[in-house]
Formats: sequence, C-alpha cells, structure tokens
Amino acid sequence: MNKNDKPTLKIIPLGGLHEIGKNTCVFEYEDEIILLDAGLAFPTDEMHGINIVLPDMTYLRENRHKIKGMIVTHGHEDHIGGIPYHLKQFDIPVIYGPRLAMALLNDKLEEAGLRDRTILKTVAPREIVRLGQSFLVEFIRNTHSIADSFSVAINTPLGVVIHTGDFKIDHTPIDGETYDLQKLAEHGEKGVLCLLSDSTNAEVPGHTPPESAVYPNLDRIFAQAEGRLMVTTFASSVHRVNIILQLAQKHRRKVVVVGRSMLNVIAHARNLGYIKCPDDLFEPLKALNRLADEQVVILTTGSQGEPLAAMTRISRKDHRHIRVKPGDTIVFSANPIPGNTIAVVNTIDRLMMQGAKVIYGKDKGIHVSGHGAQEDHKLMLALTKPKFFVPVHGEHRMLVKHAEMSQAMGIPAENTVVINNGDIVELTEESIRIAGQVPSGIELVDSAGIVHDTVMKERQQLAEDGVVTVATAVDWLGKLITPPAIHLRGVVTTV
Amino acid sequence: MNKNDKPTLKIIPLGGLHEIGKNTCVFEYEDEIILLDAGLAFPTDEMHGINIVLPDMTYLRENRHKIKGMIVTHGHEDHIGGIPYHLKQFDIPVIYGPRLAMALLNDKLEEAGLRDRTILKTVAPREIVRLGQSFLVEFIRNTHSIADSFSVAINTPLGVVIHTGDFKIDHTPIDGETYDLQKLAEHGEKGVLCLLSDSTNAEVPGHTPPESAVYPNLDRIFAQAEGRLMVTTFASSVHRVNIILQLAQKHRRKVVVVGRSMLNVIAHARNLGYIKCPDDLFEPLKALNRLADEQVVILTTGSQGEPLAAMTRISRKDHRHIRVKPGDTIVFSANPIPGNTIAVVNTIDRLMMQGAKVIYGKDKGIHVSGHGAQEDHKLMLALTKPKFFVPVHGEHRMLVKHAEMSQAMGIPAENTVVINNGDIVELTEESIRIAGQVPSGIELVDSAGIVHDTVMKERQQLAEDGVVTVATAVDWLGKLITPPAIHLRGVVTTV
Ligand SMILES: [Zn+2]
Ligand SMILES: [Zn+2]
Ligand SMILES: [Zn+2]
Ligand SMILES: [Zn+2]
Repeated sequence: MNKNDKPTLKIIPLGGLHEIGKNTCVFEYEDEIILLDAGLAFPTDEMHGINIVLPDMTYLRENRHKIKGMIVTHGHEDHIGGIPYHLKQFDIPVIYGPRLAMALLNDKLEEAGLRDRTILKTVAPREIVRLGQSFLVEFIRNTHSIADSFSVAINTPLGVVIHTGDFKIDHTPIDGETYDLQKLAEHGEKGVLCLLSDSTNAEVPGHTPPESAVYPNLDRIFAQAEGRLMVTTFASSVHRVNIILQLAQKHRRKVVVVGRSMLNVIAHARNLGYIKCPDDLFEPLKALNRLADEQVVILTTGSQGEPLAAMTRISRKDHRHIRVKPGDTIVFSANPIPGNTIAVVNTIDRLMMQGAKVIYGKDKGIHVSGHGAQEDHKLMLALTKPKFFVPVHGEHRMLVKHAEMSQAMGIPAENTVVINNGDIVELTEESIRIAGQVPSGIELVDSAGIVHDTVMKERQQLAEDGVVTVATAVDWLGKLITPPAIHLRGVVTTV
Repeated sequence: MNKNDKPTLKIIPLGGLHEIGKNTCVFEYEDEIILLDAGLAFPTDEMHGINIVLPDMTYLRENRHKIKGMIVTHGHEDHIGGIPYHLKQFDIPVIYGPRLAMALLNDKLEEAGLRDRTILKTVAPREIVRLGQSFLVEFIRNTHSIADSFSVAINTPLGVVIHTGDFKIDHTPIDGETYDLQKLAEHGEKGVLCLLSDSTNAEVPGHTPPESAVYPNLDRIFAQAEGRLMVTTFASSVHRVNIILQLAQKHRRKVVVVGRSMLNVIAHARNLGYIKCPDDLFEPLKALNRLADEQVVILTTGSQGEPLAAMTRISRKDHRHIRVKPGDTIVFSANPIPGNTIAVVNTIDRLMMQGAKVIYGKDKGIHVSGHGAQEDHKLMLALTKPKFFVPVHGEHRMLVKHAEMSQAMGIPAENTVVINNGDIVELTEESIRIAGQVPSGIELVDSAGIVHDTVMKERQQLAEDGVVTVATAVDWLGKLITPPAIHLRGVVTTV
C-alpha cells in the first residue's frame, strides 16, 4: 500500500533484460497477475548439451493462484517459445494474441500434448480484452520483422501502461499494415502512466530502414543470378520471406522450401493471408532433379549457422538432397547475431570453397533490422509522453542508452529505472521504484528435462579435464583380488 | 623439375590460411627450407581445456635436415608464438627478425628453457641476410599495429618473392617510421615473381585510417574524464599504448600498468626506444591508495574479454587490487575479434552495472585496424607489380576478395591461386600451380602437452552427456558380492 492507501502496480520482468531473449513479464495488482509473453532463449557455448533456456519460474509457481491469463505481442520464439514449459507447471486460464502467433503457439501446444491446458483467443487491432478485475488490455498494431505484431496498452486502476512489444517504425510495410501511431498518440494525449519500450537497437543511431529497402537489392541479385539461387533468412521474418517469394515470381523461378520451421511459418502465413502467392509457385525437393538451375530458388533455414539447419548441412555436404555446385548463388539475407558470427562466416567459407558465389554482409543492403533505432525510440517517447519509463528487451548497455535518451527528452532521471530480471518495479500514481527482487536466474532444458546448476558445472569440468575411472575388486580385508581396470576418456595420455 | 630443367620454388603455408592465426610459411628450393614466421592461434569454444593451437608440424619434422633458418616479420603472437614448440621438435639454426620481436621471442625461449637451441639475430631496415645457398632475404620496413614490423623480399634463383607480412599503409605513423614504399617500388620496377599479401581486411572498402586518427578522440575522453580513467587495448599495440602514455602526460595523470603482457611489452618497447617517456610517469599498483582519482590512468589487458585478463577480472569483482567505482571512465580502445564479441559486451555490461562510464564501439573513433583495407591492397599490387599473386593471412572469403581485386588490376586469373593450409604452391619462372598437399590440420596444446583428436571428441561428448560410472565387485561365478555403487557427473537426474 502506498500513502494514498491505493494498492501499487507491480511489474516484474522474469526475462528479457540484460539479454535478448526469453521475454517474460509479470503485471500484478492486488491478488491478480497477468503475463505478457513467455519466451525462451538459446544456450550460450558453455551450456553443454542444453537445448533451451527459460527464466526462473519460481515466482509464478508460488503465485499460480493469482494468474488470470496471458497476452502475447507476436509470434517470435523469444516471446512465445516458453509458453509450453509454463503450462506444464501451472495453469494459464486464457491466452490472447495475434492470429499468426496463436497459430504457431497452437502447433507447439499440440506437439507437447498440452492443447487442452489453456484457451487460445485471437485478437484484432484495437480490440480490448479484460483479464481479471484490474486489467483491460488494448492491442495496438505495430510493425516488426514478423507479421501480425502488436504493442499493448494495459489499463490498470493506476493508469495506462504501454508496452511496445518488439517494434520498428516502418511507414511502408510489406503487408500494408502500418503502425497505429494514432492510437499511441491518443494515449499520449490522455496520459500514459508508464512506457516499457524495446531497447534492442538503442546503440544504433538514426532510423531503421523500412523492410522494403531490401527489395531492389535482392531484385538485382535475382536478375543477375545465372544458375541456381539459394536464399536463407529467419523463418519467422514473414515480410522478408514474402519479398523473396514475390521476386521468385517476377524472375520466373520456382521455390523449393527447405527446413521445417520455414515450411511451417509459410504455411501459416499463407493460410492467414499475410503471404499471398499461387500454389504452383512451390515445388517439392525432388523437383530439383527436373527443373533447370535458372528456374529454381531454394529458400532455407540456417541463416545463423545453426548446426542442424539446412544451409549449415548443405555447407558441410551432409544434407540428404542438396549439394552446392559451381554457379550457385547463395544469399544470406540476415545479419549474424553476435554469438553466431563465427558459425556464419565458417558456413560462408565452406559454401564458397565448393564453388558457390555467396552474397552476405551489411554493405549489400539485403537485410534490415526488425527493431527501431535511436530516432525511432525518440518518436515512441514523443508520441506516448509517459510519466515513467522503463527500457526493456535489451542488454544492460542498451537499457542505459535508452534511459539516457529519455532523459534528453525531458523525462526526469528519477522517473526512469534501469532494471534486471527479477526486479520488482513498483508504481504508484506518483512514483516508480525498485521494491525488491523475486528469484530470477535461469532454468536450463536438455533432451531429458530441466538441468540444474551443479550438473552444468560438472559438465564444464568434464569438458576441460576428461574423466579417469579406476575399477577393481577387493576382498573383505581390502586386498586386491583383480588387477585394477583403468579407463580414460577425454584425458591426455601423451605428455 | 620443370621443363627448363630448373628446380621449382615451393611455398607451403602450414597455417594462417582460412583463419587469422598461426601464420607459418615454408619456402623450399631444392634441398633447402626457410621458414617465415611460426605463430599460434587461440582455441575456439569447442576446444575444451585447450590453451594453444599450432599447425601440423609433420612436414617440418620429416624435413628437419633441410631447415636453414627462419625469418620473422614482427612480434605478434600469431607470428612468433609457435616458435618454442617448433624448437622442441627440430632445430632451426638461426632466426632473423626485428629487434622488438627478437626481444619478445628471447623471453619466450628463456621461459621455456630453450634459449640455447637457436641463434637470434636482429635486423635493421634494408638489411639483407643469406639463408642457405638459395635465399637472400631483404627486410623492408612496414607499418602495422606493433612497432618494428617488416615486409620481406626473398631473392630466390627463380626471382624475387615479396611477402608483405602484416601491414597497413600509414603515412603518419606514431613512431615516425614510415613504410619503405620506395623499396617496394624498386622491386616492382625490377620485376617481382610473386607477391604474398595480407588479406585480413580484404572485405573492407577504402583505406584504413592512420593510427594517429585515434589521438584526438582519446584526447577528448581524457579531457572530459572526471574520476579515474581505465584504458584497455592489446598489449602488443605499441603505437596505441604510446598514444595513451602521451595523453597521460598531457593530462597530468600517472599510469598504473596492470597485466603481465602489458608490462612486458612496455618494458621492451621503452628499452628499444619505440616508446619514449619518463620513468616517473609510472606508478605501482599500490599507489592507487594515495593518488587522487583524477591523477590516475590504469592501463590494462583484457580488451577482448579474455577470462583471465585484468579488465575481465575487474568486471567480475575478482581482481585482487582494483574495484570499479562510480565515476570511473573505462575505455575499450580495441574492437572485439568476432569470436570474442559476447565476452566483451558482457564485460562492458558488468562494468556499467558497477557504475562505470564505459566508452566502446566503432563510432567512437578510438580504434583503428593494423591491417590495410581494399585500397591499401590495391596500392601494394600497384607498387610491386607481381607476375604471380597469392593472397595470404585471411579466411577463405577474404582470400577470394583479394584475388578478385588482383584480377581487376590486370593480373590474369591463372596467375593467382587461392590456397589452403598445407597446399604446395609450386612456382617456375613461367607458372604457378598447386602441386599437392602436405599434412596440414592442427595440433592442440593443453597444460599437459599435445592433445589428440580422439581425446577432444571424448571431451565434447562428456560435456554434452556427462558420465555414469557403475562400480561393483563380483565373485568368480559372476555373482554380486557388493551392492553396485553408481556415480553420476554432469547427468540430469530429474526428468
Ligand atoms: Zn523479441
Ligand atoms: Zn520479435
Ligand atoms: Zn598477423
Ligand atoms: Zn600482426
């Protein structure tokens, strides 16, 4: 309770801060909790054998009775990938989100056998839904690298909290669905208690170019390619995929889609109308045998050098159906995420060594970010005019830069907090403060389930030193009755 | 023998191609071999427990009787770090190189107890030395991030081969020692059989800015810092260290040097006159207690987030003497090498979270490369006008780009080879070709010695799966006589 005897609003991000990944945010008022997104992160190199990283869910397990539902901003893995793991541990009565995200989530829940554990409800732009007694959530169309993405305005008893979700400001989006800036401005005019805003590119000056900026550059590459074309990008970058499919039609090439996630996203996006193209644009893998090289574009996963993705396998000559041949033009229409740079450039080198012409790199104009840069952040602050500001979705440096920008735009320093996962941001109508912490850390998942810290430390040590086992039998007096059998694994024996 | 019955010249790089690291190159004519540099590389993340990576030395072990000596271009680890390991396996009768590299090498050999295994001879610019009957090597001053660096012109019975070593073209070097372009041009005029040229920045358009470009930007940071200053850069970047020391004097700060390699390089560079500054500029670590914050600059290792380096330890709060405090200004005067990006940004985040103002990033103008970019490569080709061209010192993409540039400048495609480690480049007066391979691979060194492939694979598997040991005693009939003892390490037990 604050001094006005009105309860406070608590905002507790369990993931997504000091990192890009596993975005999961708790909004709590009195005895009601709603969740905004529940994402996963991918393991770093020292997390041996780990497939997936989740936020610590202790706080949610302990407060499961308060959970009224979840709102989902968009269908990226760092926003919906954690939902099945949450549902295994506690109930989420209802999940509201955009059609594409809900379609992708539906697949995930079916695959995990969890489809009956919650209700999925799709929302349209400007739709308002009620969760519990305290939360009215309005979905505001935004622009991002995946189609059908939203910012949200959460009406609470203390005022309106706007969470941008992931956004860029793209005035010429590929699907024609522009950012609903009017709605943001309307809230700014009426008064916004607090803004939580995407900080991914807070270190990048200027504006992020529109997605359409890649079109002429990819068009030129399509026009100049003489043999087969292969293009790799993020499967979830629906707009980019859309451009590639349009160019395939323009340049009279058939499209062979390779990689499960790419097939899956294209199917859903076509089904929902975010991608429009004729059925006969697509050909199955086996058609590669009969189509001429200049009639084909192969659209694959693997733009980040992921070990099991199609493009990586192709580069290693262990893809079951596709081998590189001289004359192939291979396009990396994605920038490597910092931790993936080495894997990506090694993949490029392997492809070049097999005779492919590989087109990659920032100077080619074949990739733009899905996240706004500094001038876009300023526009967001200018439109919403929030009283309090919390930079989210970014590493610490990015949060600090974003907070500095808000101060340059007139938000007092004491009205901004730079927070970490697990921090309890407590809002009254007059104040913002960090009011403590809930358990934050991470939970690691490998093929067998959740992996604890001690196990990870043991794996790291095994990796560095190897293991020696000595087995022998002794009699009751402790005398050896068999010669000891010594086994070494991962140990250096030639000194 | 070629058709003129004249023996061929063989150039066999054992390392440094398809990578940046462990540069080691063999020149062979009849029964004589000389080596140019012998470097090491640092392990990638999946090389568990490995400290150092060396090229496969099989070819040299088998041809040890032919080795007449080694020439060293400059004192970077990727050029001299492997020499002690070579000397453990075979004799190198004499090593010629610049004074600074020989001073650093001398330390290495003393530390390894190998000082009596070879003769170290220092060379001056334009000095010519004979190795065996077939090789006359001329040292040509060049400009690079370390002081006292050379290109070489190797006179062979077939003609002159120029190896650029690592270079940028800096017309205003910090130590006044400009690139000896006249000597390169003189060789170009007389005729160069083959050029081997540094490809590190072959993907970067334009010229690399001079080292002096960082001066005004660092100067401004020094002028604006109100509390302590900490600056981290590569210890071997002698010119950068020189600038930092000059600025410390200008801004009346004492310098506390932290990190063994930084202390070592500064000592040698001052000793040889590459860095000139008064003794009383330096203060020991313990002086931090009595000096005012605004009177100090701490110069440290750790610009790449190396786990054991001083700046990394400081960021983790486990440095024995230095803790970050609010008001500190910390400058990263180095760009992260791609594989180190995550380690560097995590270090920066940790420093910022402790209240330091951290200055980093490409847009600050506080780092320039020590390697030339595309226009510098073109100038090198224009000055030396080689008949044959072999791009070296770079990953495959960079070598391909460099080869393409040479073709744009009129060198016929058949006069260029893009090679890999272990390839035998065979030169006659009229031709260049890849005439086979020698064993190439890598040799890994951990604290116990050389580590073989199978051991590395076992370590990787242990890292991903952990290990289960079951120990029990059985009697002669195979009946259990003790209950089995089961030990798990790195294994998930909660499914
Ligand atoms: Zn995101
Ligand atoms: Zn996103
Ligand atoms: Zn080098
Ligand atoms: Zn170098």
